Amino acid sequence: MGKEGLRYAAKVDLEKPAAEQPQLHNRWHPDVPFAGKIKNNEVVKIQCVDWTGGQIGNNDSANDVRDVDLTKIHYLTGPFEIETAEPGDILLVEIQDVQPLQDQPWGFTGVFPKTNGGGFLDELYPDAAKAIWDFEGIFCSSRHIPGVRFAGLIHPGILGCAPSAEILAEWNRREAELITACAHLDRDVAIPPTPQNVHAGSADAAIKEKVGREGARTIPGRPEHGGNCDIKNLSRGSKVYLPVHVQGAKFSVGDLHFSQGDGEISFCGAIEMAGEITLKFSVMKGGMSKLGLKSPIYMPGPVEPQFGPGRYIYFEGFSVDEHGKQHYMDATVAYRQTCLRAIEYLRRFGYDDYQIYLLLSCAPVQGHLAGMVDIPNACTTLGVPMDIFEFDISPGAEVKKLDLGCCAKAS
Amino acid sequence: MGKEGLRYAAKVDLEKPAAEQPQLHNRWHPDVPFAGKIKNNEVVKIQCVDWTGGQIGNNDSANDVRDVDLTKIHYLTGPFEIETAEPGDILLVEIQDVQPLQDQPWGFTGVFPKTNGGGFLDELYPDAAKAIWDFEGIFCSSRHIPGVRFAGLIHPGILGCAPSAEILAEWNRREAELITACAHLDRDVAIPPTPQNVHAGSADAAIKEKVGREGARTIPGRPEHGGNCDIKNLSRGSKVYLPVHVQGAKFSVGDLHFSQGDGEISFCGAIEMAGEITLKFSVMKGGMSKLGLKSPIYMPGPVEPQFGPGRYIYFEGFSVDEHGKQHYMDATVAYRQTCLRAIEYLRRFGYDDYQIYLLLSCAPVQGHLAGMVDIPNACTTLGVPMDIFEFDISPGAEVKKLDLGCCAKAS
Amino acid sequence: MGKEGLRYAAKVDLEKPAAEQPQLHNRWHPDVPFAGKIKNNEVVKIQCVDWTGGQIGNNDSANDVRDVDLTKIHYLTGPFEIETAEPGDILLVEIQDVQPLQDQPWGFTGVFPKTNGGGFLDELYPDAAKAIWDFEGIFCSSRHIPGVRFAGLIHPGILGCAPSAEILAEWNRREAELITACAHLDRDVAIPPTPQNVHAGSADAAIKEKVGREGARTIPGRPEHGGNCDIKNLSRGSKVYLPVHVQGAKFSVGDLHFSQGDGEISFCGAIEMAGEITLKFSVMKGGMSKLGLKSPIYMPGPVEPQFGPGRYIYFEGFSVDEHGKQHYMDATVAYRQTCLRAIEYLRRFGYDDYQIYLLLSCAPVQGHLAGMVDIPNACTTLGVPMDIFEFDISPGAEVKKLDLGCCAKAS
Amino acid sequence: MGKEGLRYAAKVDLEKPAAEQPQLHNRWHPDVPFAGKIKNNEVVKIQCVDWTGGQIGNNDSANDVRDVDLTKIHYLTGPFEIETAEPGDILLVEIQDVQPLQDQPWGFTGVFPKTNGGGFLDELYPDAAKAIWDFEGIFCSSRHIPGVRFAGLIHPGILGCAPSAEILAEWNRREAELITACAHLDRDVAIPPTPQNVHAGSADAAIKEKVGREGARTIPGRPEHGGNCDIKNLSRGSKVYLPVHVQGAKFSVGDLHFSQGDGEISFCGAIEMAGEITLKFSVMKGGMSKLGLKSPIYMPGPVEPQFGPGRYIYFEGFSVDEHGKQHYMDATVAYRQTCLRAIEYLRRFGYDDYQIYLLLSCAPVQGHLAGMVDIPNACTTLGVPMDIFEFDISPGAEVKKLDLGCCAKAS
Repeated sequence: MGKEGLRYAAKVDLEKPAAEQPQLHNRWHPDVPFAGKIKNNEVVKIQCVDWTGGQIGNNDSANDVRDVDLTKIHYLTGPFEIETAEPGDILLVEIQDVQPLQDQPWGFTGVFPKTNGGGFLDELYPDAAKAIWDFEGIFCSSRHIPGVRFAGLIHPGILGCAPSAEILAEWNRREAELITACAHLDRDVAIPPTPQNVHAGSADAAIKEKVGREGARTIPGRPEHGGNCDIKNLSRGSKVYLPVHVQGAKFSVGDLHFSQGDGEISFCGAIEMAGEITLKFSVMKGGMSKLGLKSPIYMPGPVEPQFGPGRYIYFEGFSVDEHGKQHYMDATVAYRQTCLRAIEYLRRFGYDDYQIYLLLSCAPVQGHLAGMVDIPNACTTLGVPMDIFEFDISPGAEVKKLDLGCCAKAS
Repeated sequence: MGKEGLRYAAKVDLEKPAAEQPQLHNRWHPDVPFAGKIKNNEVVKIQCVDWTGGQIGNNDSANDVRDVDLTKIHYLTGPFEIETAEPGDILLVEIQDVQPLQDQPWGFTGVFPKTNGGGFLDELYPDAAKAIWDFEGIFCSSRHIPGVRFAGLIHPGILGCAPSAEILAEWNRREAELITACAHLDRDVAIPPTPQNVHAGSADAAIKEKVGREGARTIPGRPEHGGNCDIKNLSRGSKVYLPVHVQGAKFSVGDLHFSQGDGEISFCGAIEMAGEITLKFSVMKGGMSKLGLKSPIYMPGPVEPQFGPGRYIYFEGFSVDEHGKQHYMDATVAYRQTCLRAIEYLRRFGYDDYQIYLLLSCAPVQGHLAGMVDIPNACTTLGVPMDIFEFDISPGAEVKKLDLGCCAKAS
Repeated sequence: MGKEGLRYAAKVDLEKPAAEQPQLHNRWHPDVPFAGKIKNNEVVKIQCVDWTGGQIGNNDSANDVRDVDLTKIHYLTGPFEIETAEPGDILLVEIQDVQPLQDQPWGFTGVFPKTNGGGFLDELYPDAAKAIWDFEGIFCSSRHIPGVRFAGLIHPGILGCAPSAEILAEWNRREAELITACAHLDRDVAIPPTPQNVHAGSADAAIKEKVGREGARTIPGRPEHGGNCDIKNLSRGSKVYLPVHVQGAKFSVGDLHFSQGDGEISFCGAIEMAGEITLKFSVMKGGMSKLGLKSPIYMPGPVEPQFGPGRYIYFEGFSVDEHGKQHYMDATVAYRQTCLRAIEYLRRFGYDDYQIYLLLSCAPVQGHLAGMVDIPNACTTLGVPMDIFEFDISPGAEVKKLDLGCCAKAS
Repeated sequence: MGKEGLRYAAKVDLEKPAAEQPQLHNRWHPDVPFAGKIKNNEVVKIQCVDWTGGQIGNNDSANDVRDVDLTKIHYLTGPFEIETAEPGDILLVEIQDVQPLQDQPWGFTGVFPKTNGGGFLDELYPDAAKAIWDFEGIFCSSRHIPGVRFAGLIHPGILGCAPSAEILAEWNRREAELITACAHLDRDVAIPPTPQNVHAGSADAAIKEKVGREGARTIPGRPEHGGNCDIKNLSRGSKVYLPVHVQGAKFSVGDLHFSQGDGEISFCGAIEMAGEITLKFSVMKGGMSKLGLKSPIYMPGPVEPQFGPGRYIYFEGFSVDEHGKQHYMDATVAYRQTCLRAIEYLRRFGYDDYQIYLLLSCAPVQGHLAGMVDIPNACTTLGVPMDIFEFDISPGAEVKKLDLGCCAKAS
């Protein structure tokens, strides 16, 4: 190997709008042109912009979160042609490292307003809020949420291979069906294709128009390819097995997170950052049928932060909502209640609810589906590691309400 | 302490019907008489019958599961009077040990038929099935699911303090409301009070009648007191903080599990057993307001089986069901899909689907709420520890379909 | 399996002197008669007396430790005939559980006086001391060392198969050589065979005399068979591979420990107890040559107490002794210094040095051979888990000297 | 913080001899001039050359290891002036990250010949050998030791503050005493000061002469300040508490390791590399007496690679050497035997002994002081993680002798 470093399959330029960089794109579509070629079994580095393409600043106002343009997000790097990959294969991707960009050692977590993106608890917390996180090696801390500091479980929020035309059509069919069925609700339930601010990489005008018309938005993860799965443990050392649906795989990656909690509850809930990722690509011929895979699987790496099982406080929640309404085995309702229980507990120490909402989104909290069969109550749990706090939050500790400031708010 | 062993606060007699033992009961109701008294800060042992009160046999037929009488289950030991405990207090219970009964070193896992109890995947797996597990110290294995063996994450499925009359009334109100709202569905969505086979401990006829009329069934966990939360990690060494709603707490415990997976998906999904539990009770005066608790919290013990993060295969699932229907952020649908992905993967080794369904219910699998904000797809994950298998199930291993027999079925 | 519990291969009677129980013995010798037979692949329970055969009482004086008769210790249960085992085989023993005897939920840790047994730090701490530990499920605590409480890493101190006559002769040769070479020292360096208080199980007088004359004392572990290896992690779930040197293996076990630290530094440093162990025996034919084994190997179980790597304070020690003398790469000297550094640190909280010496012996401390090549200084480390203390011992905590009483001393 | 990256307190130039770079030095002496200033509570990056100052090449010959000039090694970066630090203080150093240099993604492990450095097993393995390791993110693998791959437990081998003149004099006194006492041995037991190839940073000729005459060699760690402690777990996230002996602390760091096993047995046994380290410095005023510290202590970070306790094979060794000689409680002899047991086990798979010797030096193996009181046998254990191998090395696996090539040898 000699004295050479690893090859960059793509770099990004933070000084230039993401929309003008041809190695980026913001739709899932089989016709987005390749942004480069990667050999089977090659290891490369790939740079990525942050989730918002640079819309959020390192400052103390959440106006930028409030006003974020959601048509200009999720710029992915790629798609890359993986040599020898064909439909039916599995692309085995080993995540060998993830790092923030050396010159930008900070990231952000945002609560999006209910009227512009929303989040898991937006009925109760409808306003914009933000926390800036400073990175110091493997650790991060925030002037907006004093009293916590932790090692990041660093990972990509989004990675996957492009859908085939057939799969894309199916996505559009079923999501449109949901939108139609929920037309009476006062909230977006899915986001259909739109030409507005479409970025199709280096595509010519005709293809770009087609991608805008048909291309799947990158917000949801989808079973056929993974995509924006936002799995906090897909971190350094993980191996992920991705179904291949088109010739050359058309692999893309983006939305790097310095850390995230299970659920990523505030929507822009991870610590979002620009960064670079080191990946090894290997093609398993015929892997989908060999492994019986319809969706990605993964195996975590060995270096996850370890606190010891006894260093967590677990909150329990059930599918009875805050209005006393009994829901039937609804794990989504239960997890919302679980999160509220954690907020009620932690606010005793002097935190503002939005600070905790942000913290539960991005710290390495464990969300479990504990009991899913005891009708009518689904039971979920949320484990908060005590050791990320600089003071004692254990149930036995005496509570002294501290002055813990507040997170960035909108004016 | 001298040469003395710990005091038994209650024992059970496996030769006698549970319904005839006055230290047991099967309803949550404030009027069930005390079964004994425990001092503040005392450590005691408590014996419990299995979940079904002995209806299931150590044999190779699932007829007993198919025909189980669901009005004769969940016999809890208690309720115990905890000295000094009053409404508004927290009862801190430390689980110092859980063991199967010395003379009955086996347990069972059942798939209940859709027509009698059902389970998480009963649309696809509607029939009765059963596996018997033999215990060898901390390990268990089953003649009905060859090729696996693991250390149990042993724990009580149910523990909690009795509801007050007001809380009980609220439970009955909201669950009745659900039953009414779902009257058009062809399945039970909740189980209302019933005098049939009520067991109110040592209560006289009048109180027994009242308990039968009003008493909450023990199947669901409920936010106000925990109850049947079925949390697999509430194991040896855990501390659980339980709200107290009546004078003396009226603490009950039962439904001991040798092991369980997140979700306990086959309903009688844990490895159910008769056993004994060692508990320490401490009263935190005014603890509910001091800790801001509306539901129990707990801290796990230090001795959970550890496999290393890289020894799990994680399956991903999304809220698109097996008919291609898109659901809106439904973690319950997503987790069902996640479980199906694991079944598809594991059946390649020669297991029958029911064997895997049983195994995912009782082995220490990790179910996570990975992403809960990327509309319309909730993403959940299920981690299966590779080291419970006696052969290599990793994605890189060559699959040789083995002859792995089958679980117990109904005739 | 039905309703049956496991078979006891041997029980002990705590009311009767160990020397009068024929299923016990206190020498390693091939001629000690079999105490029972165990099938290949059988699982059995075996009871054991404590290390001293009951010489130590649950009281507040260390006179019993001071006066212990060291010719009446280490009564092992066995030897057992393992069907099909022959010289050259490996006996695979799986430790499925270890428990204290139900009626004797306590144990002890002792510092032996320099004049009667001594210990690792006896130059500095020459007097007798003792701590009694009470067991509460998986936890233990001591009235003699307040402020600590931990889950035991429960294990057998001694297990192994009998030596052949040839191996026994080699043990006697090399240990006698050491005794001769060190005759000028004022301390015992090894303990030769002696007929005094020999217990050869059910042997007749002639064999008993021979065993007394030749039989190896059980104090040291020895490479050819393991024996008293005192490995703290050989706990529940471990598999140990033991060389077989005689027909039927002649397996013995004893010296059960509720917990021990690396080094077991105070000699009787573990928490010694009477108890029972559940073992599975499997014979690997020709295993010694197949595995290339000259000494036992083992694989720990999955349920060791886990504190998280960041919950330890590690002390460093080097091979420069307390008199300022430089030793050459001597890990024994280095580890002694490392232990002294921990004592100096912990005495600030109010502990008496003997309390800490006892605690470091029996709590789950980690002793590592960190650097063994940087002449002239071997470097060893000792990790003390912070979470066994009920107060904060971290370097950042403010120290308040507490009244922590004292351990049992001799009068 | 804005868009700025962290400040470099010092960089290195790999194209230039280490001896010509004034921010490096290779002696511990209070008079080496400061190489820069660091504020209290500041976070900085510091670059370091490799252990040999670039003497070892990325090639397939061990001639460079055989011929290494041991007077030209251990160039440390520093010493740095830490503002406000004074004798008696503690310098708290948090290791926030360690990385190889971006352009040099490889390192090496060497067996030094007995005649030039030697190692822990040089009586048995006297020749030079080498393995080159390629880094891929957090992982490393070697063409010279096929079949293994692991995540590095990356750390600095050397860090510490300069000795005072008094402490330095004491080091020289006691090491000279050892040299004198061992003059009859045919091996170096310690390395006295020498002017040969001394590098005293930016010192003028007079000071350089003094440093050469008096300065302590950097090979051994020493109790008063740590130095070359070679503790494998002093990795990312660790906090180390270093005694301060001179005004401004004069902190130095070097000898970065991508990975190391307990003992670092082949001398140049870690995976040596050039790299950069991110450190935070905080001064604890009067910390030495407050904490009762005579030697450094440290607390590991939360991100150590985790394999699960059951994924290790532990080898046992005792203080009886390979000639059958019984040593008295000698942990150094015992650990040497333990390492030999591992070599015998692993050679069955096709490895050459030197390959295993190299591997045990640099892979994350666990070396424990298991039993230190059972006269005459010290017992140590060595845990080898099975998951670093690409094939099954468990005792139950069938052994197929593979063609595993060989490591680099000298011509």
